[in-house]
Amino acid sequence: MIRDPKRLSTSEAIRQQHGRDLTSYHAGRFPDVVLYPKDKEELREIIAYANRIGCPIVPFGLGTSVEGQVVPVQGGISLNFTHMNRILEIRADDFAVRVEPGVTRMQLNRELKKYGLYFPIDPGVDATLGGMAATNASGCSAVRYGSTREQILGMEAILADGSPIRTGSLAKKSSAGYNLTQLLAGSEGTLAVFAELTLRVYGLPETFLYAKAVFPDLQQACKAANRMLYRSIQPSKIELVDAYTIQAINSYKQTKYEEKPTLFLELSGWKSAVTAEVERVKEIIQEEGAGAWSHTFDESFGEQLWDARRHAALAIAALAPEKKLMTTDVCVPLSVLPEAVSFAREVMQAEDLQGAILGHIGDGNYHAVFPIDPSVPEEAAKAAKVNERIVRFALERGGTCSGEHGIGLGKKQYLTEEHGDAVPWMKKIKEAFDPNHILNPGKIF
Amino acid sequence: MIRDPKRLSTSEAIRQQHGRDLTSYHAGRFPDVVLYPKDKEELREIIAYANRIGCPIVPFGLGTSVEGQVVPVQGGISLNFTHMNRILEIRADDFAVRVEPGVTRMQLNRELKKYGLYFPIDPGVDATLGGMAATNASGCSAVRYGSTREQILGMEAILADGSPIRTGSLAKKSSAGYNLTQLLAGSEGTLAVFAELTLRVYGLPETFLYAKAVFPDLQQACKAANRMLYRSIQPSKIELVDAYTIQAINSYKQTKYEEKPTLFLELSGWKSAVTAEVERVKEIIQEEGAGAWSHTFDESFGEQLWDARRHAALAIAALAPEKKLMTTDVCVPLSVLPEAVSFAREVMQAEDLQGAILGHIGDGNYHAVFPIDPSVPEEAAKAAKVNERIVRFALERGGTCSGEHGIGLGKKQYLTEEHGDAVPWMKKIKEAFDPNHILNPGKIF
Ligand SMILES: Cc1cc2nc3c(=O)[nH]c(=O)nc-3n(C[C@H](O)[C@H](O)[C@H](O)COP(=O)(O)OP(=O)(O)OC[C@H]3O[C@@H](n4cnc5c(N)ncnc54)[C@H](O)[C@@H]3O)c2cc1C
Ligand SMILES: Cc1cc2nc3c(=O)[nH]c(=O)nc-3n(C[C@H](O)[C@H](O)[C@H](O)COP(=O)(O)OP(=O)(O)OC[C@H]3O[C@@H](n4cnc5c(N)ncnc54)[C@H](O)[C@@H]3O)c2cc1C
Repeated sequence: MIRDPKRLSTSEAIRQQHGRDLTSYHAGRFPDVVLYPKDKEELREIIAYANRIGCPIVPFGLGTSVEGQVVPVQGGISLNFTHMNRILEIRADDFAVRVEPGVTRMQLNRELKKYGLYFPIDPGVDATLGGMAATNASGCSAVRYGSTREQILGMEAILADGSPIRTGSLAKKSSAGYNLTQLLAGSEGTLAVFAELTLRVYGLPETFLYAKAVFPDLQQACKAANRMLYRSIQPSKIELVDAYTIQAINSYKQTKYEEKPTLFLELSGWKSAVTAEVERVKEIIQEEGAGAWSHTFDESFGEQLWDARRHAALAIAALAPEKKLMTTDVCVPLSVLPEAVSFAREVMQAEDLQGAILGHIGDGNYHAVFPIDPSVPEEAAKAAKVNERIVRFALERGGTCSGEHGIGLGKKQYLTEEHGDAVPWMKKIKEAFDPNHILNPGKIF
Repeated sequence: MIRDPKRLSTSEAIRQQHGRDLTSYHAGRFPDVVLYPKDKEELREIIAYANRIGCPIVPFGLGTSVEGQVVPVQGGISLNFTHMNRILEIRADDFAVRVEPGVTRMQLNRELKKYGLYFPIDPGVDATLGGMAATNASGCSAVRYGSTREQILGMEAILADGSPIRTGSLAKKSSAGYNLTQLLAGSEGTLAVFAELTLRVYGLPETFLYAKAVFPDLQQACKAANRMLYRSIQPSKIELVDAYTIQAINSYKQTKYEEKPTLFLELSGWKSAVTAEVERVKEIIQEEGAGAWSHTFDESFGEQLWDARRHAALAIAALAPEKKLMTTDVCVPLSVLPEAVSFAREVMQAEDLQGAILGHIGDGNYHAVFPIDPSVPEEAAKAAKVNERIVRFALERGGTCSGEHGIGLGKKQYLTEEHGDAVPWMKKIKEAFDPNHILNPGKIF
């Protein structure tokens, strides 16, 4: 199995680290042991062994998932992929790479840059590609490129009984049999453990343009974003941050952004196209009553802008360091977005909950984020209520309870609300693939 | 069940029509009865009933699939969706539509045009959206928009026991539980029957530009196409047709295209962007040694061009009307394409088989198409041999045996070659969803 005892740990500190996710909102339990497999063969042996003895296995990337996905609620083995972090092959001419699951997106992008390529999916924090595939992470660039699942051409996965399978191929598309790649993507470690991923990558655009537009209110910011999409403008990023978030960022990053609802934008592509596009964007933005507008090709401005956006959640957390962050993750049809965001703001106000609203609004996906102390029953109850009302509002209008974070522990009840008729069939698949329930038990269902 | 006897047929002629696909290459068997459900409720009742008595059900769209998918190899019911062809909702502001599965792509596009929208997926012939979802059809526009599966936001499906489930939502993305939408898409009627589809649609681009480039040989045409993609050019169509195909088209359509390997191209988007892009394309094309090059914004030229491309298969068939068309459908990594296409040409020559090569080369997907008489054992053997060598060449280089046509009857052995380790797990899903094997039995596996 693990052929080097250094890659096995039962130390309290290490187990604790693997017993919770970054937000720590979800109550933790330690794994009994943390294993660091170094290759497919070890991985296969561990899983087959765990299956024989009925021991739970919880894959662990960087532990940045926010719905308690990595918490080993039934103890057992936490599988850490730090030692499986090799970039196996860069096939520049095929716009494809093969990686081990412990490779992080930033690590991959550092390497890809040498080839004039990049992997655009950006959930803000760094994360392993295995973790991103398992939660179907998306983030800022999904509006142009889709989520992580759209980037997965194929994978090598180990099933619960230790069987390795290869799904997909190096080809850009396929209609060969059931699409197991897309079934396993987003399965949060409950159906299979990824041993290798084949991912799509892209040519680095010639130019990036960065822009910022400040609005008098949230609704107008959302409407402006929609109007762009309706006019076939394809930003590579379009992010909403509300006044509360800007305050948090200003205090965290010592920046001086105007403390009003703001759109952060990125256009990219050929310089000539971007230059023409930004004029159309500006026109729309101004018609929608934006106050300050600025745009630039200057990379340092762009870096500052996206750095601020990336640290938004941490900045919000820093406003109340003694609390934990709870976050909603609904995704609604685009036309519903302006109304949904206003509703979220009202609901928080009604419950007297301080919190932020920010989101990937080109997808209709936004987060209401509120720091709470889950050990204070009253606060937990308020948060649960706000969460519930926001989710229900989305579901009633054809939306989903999770745009990108996944179900984990935190959204189980909403999965049932959203897909009650389909859940029994998801469970049949779980049963067929993992009859002993060893793979990340207690998650999703 | 069927509440109007007019929507049930046991006539010989009708049963015969539902006993084969358009190419008739695959040996037919008639269904015992053809039913034309008119709504979900009837559909549900038929399926539940068939499941109780163990009667096979084969969904039938327009019967244009080419791997024998609609042939009822075990008899039973053929389910025709002609009466379930309503466009239920056009949500222009959400870039989404809800349709019944019998709606055809052309029917949908006629309606969408009124809203300045379109559904880009274009497998040449007209086809139902249910059939396209079930084979994961793609065709000319996949290079920009992806295949049919990428357009499916959600669906209502009836499972083998008559259970209706809703998958996905109206939101652009979701991480809520296992992705049943993507599992059912491409399942060729073997896992569920679609009762309703929610599809993504797009704003009609401001401009379309059409172009044609003639090359001295196939390899160079492929290389030119690849070079465009390497330079981040995003055509909305880029099609290869070889000299044989052009001959066939000229004779079928009375056109006078130069009888050499040719790229058919379409660029689309904002006029300013397209105008800049075509200059880059032209430069690349000429560097790669193209002979004649022409481009135009003229729609009638475009219509003629794509009409020719669309009729390519029929034109090839018309060269040998007494024979049947067999077609390969491999998809290879882009870098392998020039070599793969040359190999296909050599293999056909070696076997002295007349045939065409054409394809969606922006995806690495090409077809070798040869008219044969399957009742002449020698011809059938030759065709099988060519098919096998072409598929194996692709598989050895990381490609897939089916880029877009699916497995049906015709590619079963290659599915096993490609995904031998995964097939048992596909079968477990089949078993879990359709334990009585009533849904399109004998296909895929
Ligand atoms: C501040 C902050 C901001 C965030 N913003 C976004 C955002 O904008 N968009 C977004 O989508 N997400 C966001 N996230 C969530 C998070 O980054 C993603 O969920 C990420 O994909 C998790 O990656 P990870 O490597 O940390 O995985 P982990 O958290 O370690 O694991 C996530 C899941 O993947 C499974 N897993 C890990 N490796 C494997 C493997 N090899 N095989 C099978 N299963 C595996 C785990 O069991 C678990 O179920 C944010 C998180 C934080 C803390
Ligand atoms: C000349 C020619 C050119 C072609 N070119 C292309 C091309 O470029 N690209 C491409 O991808 N394809 C191409 N095809 C193949 C074909 O057009 C596609 O496979 C198409 O998707 C089939 O649609 P249909 O409505 O005819 O479905 P059918 O052939 O009737 O059925 C196809 C499959 O879908 C299932 N099905 C139908 N309706 C439902 C439903 N409601 N629920 C569940 N399952 C259902 C059937 O059981 C069957 O398995 C071509 C075919 C021809 C004849």
